[in-house]
Amino acid sequence: MASSLIGRQLALFLQKNLWLGAPGCRYVSKAVPQTQVDFEYDGPCMKTSVPGPRSQELTKQLGEIQNVGAINFFCNYEESRGNYLVDVDGNRMLDVYTQISSIPIGYNHPALLKLMSNPNNLSTFVNRPALGILPPETFPDTLTDSLLSVAPSGMTRVQTMACGSCSNENAYKAMFIWYKNKERGHNTPSDEDVSTCMVNQAPGCPDLSIMSFMGAFHGRTLGCLATTHSKAIHKLDVPSFDWPIAPFPRLRYPLEQFTRENAQEEARCLEEVEDLIVKWRQKGKPVAGIVIEPIQAEGGDNHASPNFFRSLRNIARKHGCAFHVDEVQTGGGCTGKFWAHEHWGMDDPADIVSFSKKLLTGGYYHKDELQADKAYRIFNTWMGDPSKNLFLSEVLNVIRRESLLEEVARSGRALLNGLYELQAQYPGILSRARGQGTFCAIDVCDDATRTSILLKARNKGILLGGCGERSIRFRPALIFKEYHVHLFLNIFNDILAKHK
Amino acid sequence: MASSLIGRQLALFLQKNLWLGAPGCRYVSKAVPQTQVDFEYDGPCMKTSVPGPRSQELTKQLGEIQNVGAINFFCNYEESRGNYLVDVDGNRMLDVYTQISSIPIGYNHPALLKLMSNPNNLSTFVNRPALGILPPETFPDTLTDSLLSVAPSGMTRVQTMACGSCSNENAYKAMFIWYKNKERGHNTPSDEDVSTCMVNQAPGCPDLSIMSFMGAFHGRTLGCLATTHSKAIHKLDVPSFDWPIAPFPRLRYPLEQFTRENAQEEARCLEEVEDLIVKWRQKGKPVAGIVIEPIQAEGGDNHASPNFFRSLRNIARKHGCAFHVDEVQTGGGCTGKFWAHEHWGMDDPADIVSFSKKLLTGGYYHKDELQADKAYRIFNTWMGDPSKNLFLSEVLNVIRRESLLEEVARSGRALLNGLYELQAQYPGILSRARGQGTFCAIDVCDDATRTSILLKARNKGILLGGCGERSIRFRPALIFKEYHVHLFLNIFNDILAKHK
Repeated sequence: MASSLIGRQLALFLQKNLWLGAPGCRYVSKAVPQTQVDFEYDGPCMKTSVPGPRSQELTKQLGEIQNVGAINFFCNYEESRGNYLVDVDGNRMLDVYTQISSIPIGYNHPALLKLMSNPNNLSTFVNRPALGILPPETFPDTLTDSLLSVAPSGMTRVQTMACGSCSNENAYKAMFIWYKNKERGHNTPSDEDVSTCMVNQAPGCPDLSIMSFMGAFHGRTLGCLATTHSKAIHKLDVPSFDWPIAPFPRLRYPLEQFTRENAQEEARCLEEVEDLIVKWRQKGKPVAGIVIEPIQAEGGDNHASPNFFRSLRNIARKHGCAFHVDEVQTGGGCTGKFWAHEHWGMDDPADIVSFSKKLLTGGYYHKDELQADKAYRIFNTWMGDPSKNLFLSEVLNVIRRESLLEEVARSGRALLNGLYELQAQYPGILSRARGQGTFCAIDVCDDATRTSILLKARNKGILLGGCGERSIRFRPALIFKEYHVHLFLNIFNDILAKHK
Repeated sequence: MASSLIGRQLALFLQKNLWLGAPGCRYVSKAVPQTQVDFEYDGPCMKTSVPGPRSQELTKQLGEIQNVGAINFFCNYEESRGNYLVDVDGNRMLDVYTQISSIPIGYNHPALLKLMSNPNNLSTFVNRPALGILPPETFPDTLTDSLLSVAPSGMTRVQTMACGSCSNENAYKAMFIWYKNKERGHNTPSDEDVSTCMVNQAPGCPDLSIMSFMGAFHGRTLGCLATTHSKAIHKLDVPSFDWPIAPFPRLRYPLEQFTRENAQEEARCLEEVEDLIVKWRQKGKPVAGIVIEPIQAEGGDNHASPNFFRSLRNIARKHGCAFHVDEVQTGGGCTGKFWAHEHWGMDDPADIVSFSKKLLTGGYYHKDELQADKAYRIFNTWMGDPSKNLFLSEVLNVIRRESLLEEVARSGRALLNGLYELQAQYPGILSRARGQGTFCAIDVCDDATRTSILLKARNKGILLGGCGERSIRFRPALIFKEYHVHLFLNIFNDILAKHK
């Protein structure tokens, strides 16, 4: 560990007093970090502006090989710890973005390192199997102990996949197969089905559709991309499907202050959903499934009420469409529950729930009837990666052992309250603070100001991400404690005070 | 290691004499295994029929969680070594299928285990980065030392992805983007492009197409699936695109005995390719790219001549279509060259070459002009996995150090000659032996006989796979030596002799 005990105490003192630099809210953490103190740093430590000279050099080098337009900087993952990401210029930053929301329990968690040091686990890393045909002996037990131990209500089946896009693509296929068998009344395709599908034509390749929502993000492969509607740059120049796109409610925040207006807006969207289902059926492109995020993430952290989702689930059932909840970004505990859809309080929330990112492996849960009826219909060479399942088992152990969901709920309250205070203090800059658990966001007056604030925060040692047209999204790891919230708020306040 | 030296000598003796069990070809290996003797077993060792009782029990258990229709048996990867896969019932099989052609240098290779024991590498496994925004310091060097050290002729750029399907999906997107920018004459989309793409409509989501070939396999996500035409079960009930599908030459084998007929067949297919390009342009769905496997694998190990591919590459250039060579199954050395397209002898073989399986990471190489012009057009959260790049570097070291491409060429000659002899000996059962390197196949008289032979071989300790309607495909690891070929041929001969 880099810092000595004395250095740590000094750093703690300095962090607690960072608020002295700016007027406004003051946060002094009563809760000194407990478990992380063993393995993480005490605060940001900046040596250069970011990207520093070494990062710039490496970006130039990588530019000879790839498009580097999206590169932020290069990282020293060996030196990163817990909530702190260290870059190649020695800058240490509090990571409130965590590799696009995909690091569940921080960098180099001791439990994961320990798992790597167990010689019994080596073979799982070295020999990647074709899981669909030759799974390892431990596979059923690992699935039961890891993924199924956190299965959504009503689901006892899960299919792993390599990434979020593959998870959604295969979930869509499962819905198409299910829908078509239902429509046929049996699962024996006709000779015409068999011959036409080989040349991409109906009826074998039927004109079915998946309904998605404006502002949604479900991935970038061609099937997923037809249901993604958050930014034009994702979709431009790529052929797509003529599938229905419903409006996602545009709510006012804080939600509890605008219940009446928000309920009206949600009702408007639900009406449109039903209209579109009917319209697309009449067009000969029936809706086999509806896919939705519990909180639209990439599209700008757009929330809807539990009542909206409950009604939508009923509409799907009424019209015979499968209901697919995409928890790739919301899943894994960041909303204070393991799945965001648990906030809806339903016994039967969905037919399919897909995941990736914090779960470390992609995949989807599904109800029994959504399982493909024959072998090789949902299949590929790897079907996931058992080494990721191994890590996930340990992540779930840590979540339980350290009561991280409760921690997230606590940190999330502190974060959202802090954001409320900041937007009250800087109404010209900030608005629409919103969130569930630590899955929070706030809007900035315009895109240019957002960019400026994000860059300033980074140079002060705080890593954040944007989403939508002018939102900042907060996506810390599950080990982001109240203490880290206060650290963040103090630095953020400082930046806003100078920006004002 | 399980077997003592005496046990090993005995086993070697027994293997060399296996041919005694059946009349016909006799193979006695002069070459005793050299490097593998250190870490692999001496031959198959069967204790139960396969799947054995433990595999059946686990299949039942997994059946509560997933469709298990494709499960062969459960494996003990810890005990597997080199070319030998051990199952949970203690059966040890010579693996000539290698997890659908995806294990490059055998099970538990000491070089890969050693890599895992290096503490400097731990962090790469534990902290999976979002490579497109926050790559590790070593990323450019690792790409240069691994993937770029085996880059196809004319290509200095590579994009990693998580799997083969994602690789092809993104390669298609790269071709669409390239084509559309070329058509526009600039890379600035119109306001109409931007607004229409958000709702899946032209001109933003244009009616472009990818040309593929009958019998092709390029993956199972919706974009890939529209170019896959090998088996109906892959495609049934899934919506698709109206994209052109050209005939792939149906050649007679051995190729050198039917050069005139085969040249005619190839000319016919090439003519059809040009006709389809013109037809689809007239339909308003111009062909942005042509995708093809150097050897159609899943579709039945269908070969074409270097001349066919050279002509096809010229047709693509003439009509302004990108030329995408899918080396997901053929790449990585199994044809005796690192890439199968090297057999065509071209300086400029392709615009895009995609890979996965034996490369351990997915991805694609591309020519400079196929790089997306803006950030986030080719993007996802993980963009591959640096821990797989780490393994790949070591695999490439082993391939060079042990001259494995030469070994593959040698083993491949022995295998193909052995198959020629077997089909001469059993003309009622076997025909159309063909191959390049150890990437070989042979046809069986009918599907039922094929299934019977595959199961018998498995129970004798030989793992094989099928492809096409009635072919057996051989997909051993690169460490499959002449010695293993002889071992296989002796057992296979024995099975055929009894089947006769």
